[in-house]
Amino acid sequence: MAKYKVIFLPDKVEVEVEGGSLLEAAGKAGVYIDSECGGQGLCGKCRLQILNGNAKADKHAIGFFSGEEIRDGYVLACQTAVTDNLKVGIPAQSRLEMEEIVTEGTPVEYSQPGKVSLHKVAQDPASLSEPLVNKVYLELPKPTMEDNISDIDRVTRELNRQLNFSSYDISLACLQNLADKLRQSDWKVTATVARQDGKGRLLQLEEGNTTDGNYGLAIDVGTTTMVVQLVHLKTGEVIGVEGNHNPQARYGEDVISRMIFACTRNRLNPLHKAVVTNINDLVEALTREKGIDTNNISCVVAAGNTTMSHFLMGLIPCSIRLEPYIPTATIYPQILAKDIGININPDGILEVLPSVASYVGGDIVAGLLACGLGNNPEVSCLIDVGTNGEIVIGNDEWIVCCSASAGPAFEGAGTKWGMRASKGAIEKVVIENSRVTIETIGKAKPRGICGSGLIDSIYELARNKIIGQDGKFDLSTDNERIIVKEDGPQYILAFLEETETGEAVTITEIDISNLIKAKGAIFAALKSLTDYVGLSFGQLDKIYLSGGFGSSLSIPKAIAIGLLPDIDTERIQYIGNSAIMGARIALLSRSAFESAVSLSKTMTNIELSNYLPFMNEFIASLFLPHTDDRLFPSIHY
Amino acid sequence: MAKYKVIFLPDKVEVEVEGGSLLEAAGKAGVYIDSECGGQGLCGKCRLQILNGNAKADKHAIGFFSGEEIRDGYVLACQTAVTDNLKVGIPAQSRLEMEEIVTEGTPVEYSQPGKVSLHKVAQDPASLSEPLVNKVYLELPKPTMEDNISDIDRVTRELNRQLNFSSYDISLACLQNLADKLRQSDWKVTATVARQDGKGRLLQLEEGNTTDGNYGLAIDVGTTTMVVQLVHLKTGEVIGVEGNHNPQARYGEDVISRMIFACTRNRLNPLHKAVVTNINDLVEALTREKGIDTNNISCVVAAGNTTMSHFLMGLIPCSIRLEPYIPTATIYPQILAKDIGININPDGILEVLPSVASYVGGDIVAGLLACGLGNNPEVSCLIDVGTNGEIVIGNDEWIVCCSASAGPAFEGAGTKWGMRASKGAIEKVVIENSRVTIETIGKAKPRGICGSGLIDSIYELARNKIIGQDGKFDLSTDNERIIVKEDGPQYILAFLEETETGEAVTITEIDISNLIKAKGAIFAALKSLTDYVGLSFGQLDKIYLSGGFGSSLSIPKAIAIGLLPDIDTERIQYIGNSAIMGARIALLSRSAFESAVSLSKTMTNIELSNYLPFMNEFIASLFLPHTDDRLFPSIHY
Repeated sequence: MAKYKVIFLPDKVEVEVEGGSLLEAAGKAGVYIDSECGGQGLCGKCRLQILNGNAKADKHAIGFFSGEEIRDGYVLACQTAVTDNLKVGIPAQSRLEMEEIVTEGTPVEYSQPGKVSLHKVAQDPASLSEPLVNKVYLELPKPTMEDNISDIDRVTRELNRQLNFSSYDISLACLQNLADKLRQSDWKVTATVARQDGKGRLLQLEEGNTTDGNYGLAIDVGTTTMVVQLVHLKTGEVIGVEGNHNPQARYGEDVISRMIFACTRNRLNPLHKAVVTNINDLVEALTREKGIDTNNISCVVAAGNTTMSHFLMGLIPCSIRLEPYIPTATIYPQILAKDIGININPDGILEVLPSVASYVGGDIVAGLLACGLGNNPEVSCLIDVGTNGEIVIGNDEWIVCCSASAGPAFEGAGTKWGMRASKGAIEKVVIENSRVTIETIGKAKPRGICGSGLIDSIYELARNKIIGQDGKFDLSTDNERIIVKEDGPQYILAFLEETETGEAVTITEIDISNLIKAKGAIFAALKSLTDYVGLSFGQLDKIYLSGGFGSSLSIPKAIAIGLLPDIDTERIQYIGNSAIMGARIALLSRSAFESAVSLSKTMTNIELSNYLPFMNEFIASLFLPHTDDRLFPSIHY
Repeated sequence: MAKYKVIFLPDKVEVEVEGGSLLEAAGKAGVYIDSECGGQGLCGKCRLQILNGNAKADKHAIGFFSGEEIRDGYVLACQTAVTDNLKVGIPAQSRLEMEEIVTEGTPVEYSQPGKVSLHKVAQDPASLSEPLVNKVYLELPKPTMEDNISDIDRVTRELNRQLNFSSYDISLACLQNLADKLRQSDWKVTATVARQDGKGRLLQLEEGNTTDGNYGLAIDVGTTTMVVQLVHLKTGEVIGVEGNHNPQARYGEDVISRMIFACTRNRLNPLHKAVVTNINDLVEALTREKGIDTNNISCVVAAGNTTMSHFLMGLIPCSIRLEPYIPTATIYPQILAKDIGININPDGILEVLPSVASYVGGDIVAGLLACGLGNNPEVSCLIDVGTNGEIVIGNDEWIVCCSASAGPAFEGAGTKWGMRASKGAIEKVVIENSRVTIETIGKAKPRGICGSGLIDSIYELARNKIIGQDGKFDLSTDNERIIVKEDGPQYILAFLEETETGEAVTITEIDISNLIKAKGAIFAALKSLTDYVGLSFGQLDKIYLSGGFGSSLSIPKAIAIGLLPDIDTERIQYIGNSAIMGARIALLSRSAFESAVSLSKTMTNIELSNYLPFMNEFIASLFLPHTDDRLFPSIHY
């Protein structure tokens, strides 16, 4: 077959391909291109400009471009076959620049006399009980004719004196060189011990005292971004953090697109490999930077939503997508990390935090560990806003949860100029009279709007009565920033001469409608759940909010648009990346991990898709802040 | 490097090598040559005749050959480097022809009211309880919104209705395709379930009802021979049997030589691979012959002595050899058979029967299952005669055991014309006046003498007063069959014109002395053990004898030379290959396997090497039948 060279600008990344689509060529080159729909030609996000060579936008793509753009060589990468040597430019809005990824949770402040809070582990290494994988130094008596038990019995006899397991399993690899290890070390060894099914599992034996060299990984396997923390298991210290985009994005922006890719074409493996390879890349970067041998990493705890956990473990996720929404498993077996290709110590283990149901995953269970919900007599609430909004309410006696299909609007997707909370995203908006003040991430020229910017925009537009409480523009007033184009009325946040892209950054009436639906779904889910347990919002002692809004999220404005309930803002806390924090807590505390498993079994999942009260609440919520203004007594537009 | 072609006659097996020894070339060619000492040039067994090409017997080998033999091109294979193309003849006594391998145990007849005897399982499939690995057919209700538990929870919910496990583990491989398996099969599947640590372990899920296709392997991993039985796990039927020599013989005839090979040269791997490859060869032959898919083999139970079990599992056996005789393990973890390279279903498991100590292995524990010792209120005794003599005495309340270094004399090694019980071996000897009547295995020309023939010979020589009760020849009489050569006085059992080798087959005074030491060690061990528990021989209800004597073993003659105690011969039974039978019982009955594990923990091993009473008994036993003739009241020479 003929081979073609494709060069991607501005980074001059070259790749040689034998046909295939331009999007596939980008994937092969390691160039990440936005492709929300997974290459179906539907989202119009994978815009590229052909600078050199013969490649025409095909008819499927025509609708996405103006005549001028077509003349300038704009194409959709997924709909363009490579049949020539090409030089290709990547427009700014198609480029996924390094986000400001949230790599840590915010410590939750509460104290509870007489009881060690699990989440304290993450903040206070002194409260460390026992990490998920322990290293124990043993000085064994040498065998004699009077004491001639087998080598492994000699090791477990000593372990019994130091640990609390009733019995021990041993890996074959460890058993195979046990005799030499013991004798070469003069019977002074360090045992690496995990817990499996209530028994100790001897993973590894090292010569001498190596208890200082025991590291673990906490991993947030997010749909959009992935974060890895390298943690010292003896001190609890976070040694380093790495994060990047989930490279599965090339197969679709959200879990549904990715499931469609994996299931309709029977191609689970690329998605599985993408996440594992990315973990290995992040781990390699971390260990190289910190000068740590990957063999000293004995344990991984991963938190992800149910679909991501399935992709990670290589489980078939296909029935998650369709009613009745069945996952392969919600509690995942402990496996060797190497069994799915993660490059740590070959005897090191992987624990994936348990899910509750298809749309309440291990990331939410991790969130509970991070905010102490389930370990506290106070009734608190965790709201995680991503593609879905997951909501948990409960205390140490009961927990209910649900998931609402809110759409990814607050993560910046599904709106015209929406983007993730990365460089150039408008994160703050204030409108005073006709004067618009915006702040962008990294003080860069505006490229789009992230979640906090969208919340600000809607609030400011409504407060200035530029839109009504129904989210519609008041076109009767004369406002130079309001324009009407083919896609309807929109408000200019940044004029074309101010932006990176050379196009004005706007928020459209359709965007606002989508955002109102999204906030309405989350609020309606929260209302349904509180009603289900017979509580008012005022009875929630705490609301913890996590998600990819961006760090500038304004709680008062989120209340004002009706995303959050109208309670004392002091009782609402944005806790950032609660999944990574929960994963680390589980890594550092065996009892926390076990608590996560039992929490996941305790949680009652309310399936909203068939729940009539939710439908009614949703309709009532499609207003700013709500059709029932008694629910928002402090809000006055 | 130069390459040389070596052709072995009579089978015209060719091999190409780049130097190395002739013994190594034979190994590479798959030609099995006797090499008791493991290639150290000490035993003189690996005699080959150079027929063509340039290869001289080197100085180390000179002592083993007459001048004529050297002229005829005889060399020791291990001491001869290949530096030319060679045609090589294998003398008959160096060739290991197919033995009459004992591939089954003899059913033990006893009944015990109100209690199912474990050993019955081997004879009566109707008594089958539950095999070590079960296949269970499940018809699952399809998921609905009301019954939307995860796939794995749906499977285990149904398993709970059919099996008695408290909970279930699942292999990653099984979990990874669970979702598709369930849906493709329309929720009708067969689960393969093993037991691990008291929990069920789901190994495999197959579409439809495959419960009829569940096979297991019982393997006797003997030092000398290996036997594999293919067993239908649902019916208990033995579908086929294969056996051959343990190819580890090329690294040494006995476990000590093999440990020296493995440990002094740090070459465990060839020994591990040899036994695994041989198992695969036997399994391939069996499955091909019977038309059975290896994927339908879900389970292997192996019985071997402690050293062989270590070689099989790939454990370092080196400290077994030297005081204080420490094995790596006596209870072996359940592993996947594929983890050590055994080709059955990749999710199939391997259980190695537990050992008691370095010199009382899983073969003996298997023997207990076969003869019911430990499961029976009668006090019985198992004597297994191989390189070591292992002796067990006990009932269902207590068990003691020991191992005596008897040497391999009764297996045919260590005596001038000794050989295993294979074609051409003299297995029966009767001497009436000067007339000697011999019978050989396969009615072939005599090639040597096997265990039963050696026992007969000594008994007949003593009965005819050709030797005294001290085992020394009476050289004062005129007997044409008694000759005196460089290696001392010897008795001709077959004249050179009668034999396959063209040399007379004799038994020497040194042989007799070695055999008296061997029988003395076994008897002394038995006496020490009965004294230890305060019993007389008469209080032993049964003595079960196993070992490689050959099927013609005469119990009365074995008593008469003082190998076995002088009790009613009706109470002594030769039970053949009790290891393979015990392995099969464990394969067919989970409770029998668990009983084997608990028996191995119950057994008290008496270490004879430091046990003074044994030394005294041994000295007293070096006489025919014994220095204390009150112990053998019925024997009169």
